[in-house]
Amino acid sequence: FILRGVFFLGEIIYFDNSSTTRPSKKAVEYINNALINNWGNPSSLHTMGIEAEQEINLTRKRISKLINCSDDEIYFTASGTEANNIAIKGSVLSRQKRGKRIITTAIEHPSVLENIEYFESQGFEVIKLKPNSFGIISEEDIKNSINIDTILVSIMLVNNEVGSIEPVKAAAEQIKKIGCPALLHCDAVQAFGKMPIDVKKLGIDLLSASGHKIHASKGVGFLYKKKGVNISVTVHGGGQEKGLRSGTESVPLISGLRGAVEDLGNINENLTRQKDLWLYAKNQILSTGLAEINSPDDALPYILNISVNGYRSETLLHFLNSKNIFVSSGSACAKGHKSHVMKALGLSDNRIDSALRLSFSKENTKNEIDIFCSELISACKILRKA
Amino acid sequence: FILRGVFFLGEIIYFDNSSTTRPSKKAVEYINNALINNWGNPSSLHTMGIEAEQEINLTRKRISKLINCSDDEIYFTASGTEANNIAIKGSVLSRQKRGKRIITTAIEHPSVLENIEYFESQGFEVIKLKPNSFGIISEEDIKNSINIDTILVSIMLVNNEVGSIEPVKAAAEQIKKIGCPALLHCDAVQAFGKMPIDVKKLGIDLLSASGHKIHASKGVGFLYKKKGVNISVTVHGGGQEKGLRSGTESVPLISGLRGAVEDLGNINENLTRQKDLWLYAKNQILSTGLAEINSPDDALPYILNISVNGYRSETLLHFLNSKNIFVSSGSACAKGHKSHVMKALGLSDNRIDSALRLSFSKENTKNEIDIFCSELISACKILRKA
Repeated sequence: FILRGVFFLGEIIYFDNSSTTRPSKKAVEYINNALINNWGNPSSLHTMGIEAEQEINLTRKRISKLINCSDDEIYFTASGTEANNIAIKGSVLSRQKRGKRIITTAIEHPSVLENIEYFESQGFEVIKLKPNSFGIISEEDIKNSINIDTILVSIMLVNNEVGSIEPVKAAAEQIKKIGCPALLHCDAVQAFGKMPIDVKKLGIDLLSASGHKIHASKGVGFLYKKKGVNISVTVHGGGQEKGLRSGTESVPLISGLRGAVEDLGNINENLTRQKDLWLYAKNQILSTGLAEINSPDDALPYILNISVNGYRSETLLHFLNSKNIFVSSGSACAKGHKSHVMKALGLSDNRIDSALRLSFSKENTKNEIDIFCSELISACKILRKA
Repeated sequence: FILRGVFFLGEIIYFDNSSTTRPSKKAVEYINNALINNWGNPSSLHTMGIEAEQEINLTRKRISKLINCSDDEIYFTASGTEANNIAIKGSVLSRQKRGKRIITTAIEHPSVLENIEYFESQGFEVIKLKPNSFGIISEEDIKNSINIDTILVSIMLVNNEVGSIEPVKAAAEQIKKIGCPALLHCDAVQAFGKMPIDVKKLGIDLLSASGHKIHASKGVGFLYKKKGVNISVTVHGGGQEKGLRSGTESVPLISGLRGAVEDLGNINENLTRQKDLWLYAKNQILSTGLAEINSPDDALPYILNISVNGYRSETLLHFLNSKNIFVSSGSACAKGHKSHVMKALGLSDNRIDSALRLSFSKENTKNEIDIFCSELISACKILRKA
């Protein structure tokens, strides 16, 4: 097979890295190694099974270091969505007799919100905390919402549309203070591999992450579950992943996840470089006089949400697409719908309808920002004429 | 990366193809093509998203031809286990007010049995049909078990331990005759790609299959759901796969599944060749005088279950392993437990404890069977001495 375009993007400008990313060099290498040289079933008793099991345990170990947990607290899944499903359903079902309140935010990913809304339809009391206009949930609101009846608090670490960072730790402190049976779940899909995460310092019981947002393949994610925390099993079967997620593990994609993590480099150094790029993008875009910024100043500098006044997101997206520039209009997970996140920010309809999300990786450059700005100016001229 | 050993197995004899298989040439090629050249998110609105969506739709189309359905009846999952979870939970929850009886067999895969046992613990009436001593469920038992209160019948097409083929069609006929609200689910993980399957002729509403049993990667499977059949959603999120299985699709592994299917060749021709190999294996093994055959004469000729009198399965497995021959002792999914399938066959403990499953692919040869028999003889001599 031809490895066309493996290690460079060529002529495209890809600003949609919060939707998905290009698999890294090591991710591709490790996937191939498993497909070709280590294709046993990790549940098999013979050496081919043992080697496959050892291979996925290497990834378990590598990931655990990144979030400061032990390797037996990592459970592989097929996606961040699956991790969210297992964590939320398992938490609520295991604690349904101990309380009825579930706390989340209005700006979670659908895989959190729809799980919790399911339980709302089953009679649980659901509180969806509202953010300020930059997508930040207040510590005070979090603390005030937690009562003795609370069984689950699920708050994302980084919002996927505007990049706001949420004060998850406040929930952990309040749960401890109140002494309620709540577990603290954190959807860290947009944070994992992009900012330092210490599950112990944050006081998190359950954390979800995805591979394909950090240059692994689509089809792999993981759940961190703190040792000693018991949740109900909601995926039944052969008992893989200590019974929490049955189904033969995708050894190749789990290997590839390790490759992607190894290719990440230093997370803090990456953050410094991304902040520089993000500020450059923000200033250049503002200097066109065409757009407003929807992301907070202290957003995770991988996401920059803007509104281009007077132009519909989809129209701009398709214009930019024709120039080989790829951005997102709201979350890719909510195809065609008006973003519930942007609505929760309390922005005007015009501003919501003209929102674009630029999401970066370390492959992006200031030169690409310049080209983007020049095409944005061009788009606004041409589309106004039309 | 080095493609060491891609297209030949070298010196190993792999008779554990019902646990997992070696990814085929095209499977590996297609996975790489998607990783490298088509890595967009199928939910993205831009052309990179559209191309990724088209890629997985090619697989949908290819698979649908193989089981005689239309492409919009195929829903991708991460495994056969996930397909079983979605099908069974979704069926029971959607029909829980219309009846309480669930019918299955005592020899299903744990991902079927444990889902159904979960509902049994919730108060549903569960009937587990018993097979004869060769693992075959009788048509009459199936028909007699279905009453007007029945909401789900789940019967596998091919048993994973002995290879018996089950009369699934009888259930469809009876459901229609009785007029009960039951859906007919079929776990076809061991049958898909190995025997002709016509979901229309079989009268199946839901069918589960897995990629890694037919030389695709571990981490991909699918559910067939007949058009017009509604089941409850049990995986919540962004609404991928028409809302039935949220989570970003694993484009690379779904592409690889198509590659594996293309590499299958003609299913009926394969069956003829496998039957020849299977009969050869059976006769050669019997002629050693060391073993009995647990599979029925009309088993799917990809699985041959034998008992080597007086020798424990694990001991033999490890001895053969040391000779680079890989077999299974019972199902790889139930590590360390006495097989519930072999128990349901009513075999003696000695026979159960000495059972080995040989499972073939088209890569296996008669020469390998000869080597296996000679090593089996050698094992019995050496282990007896010990």
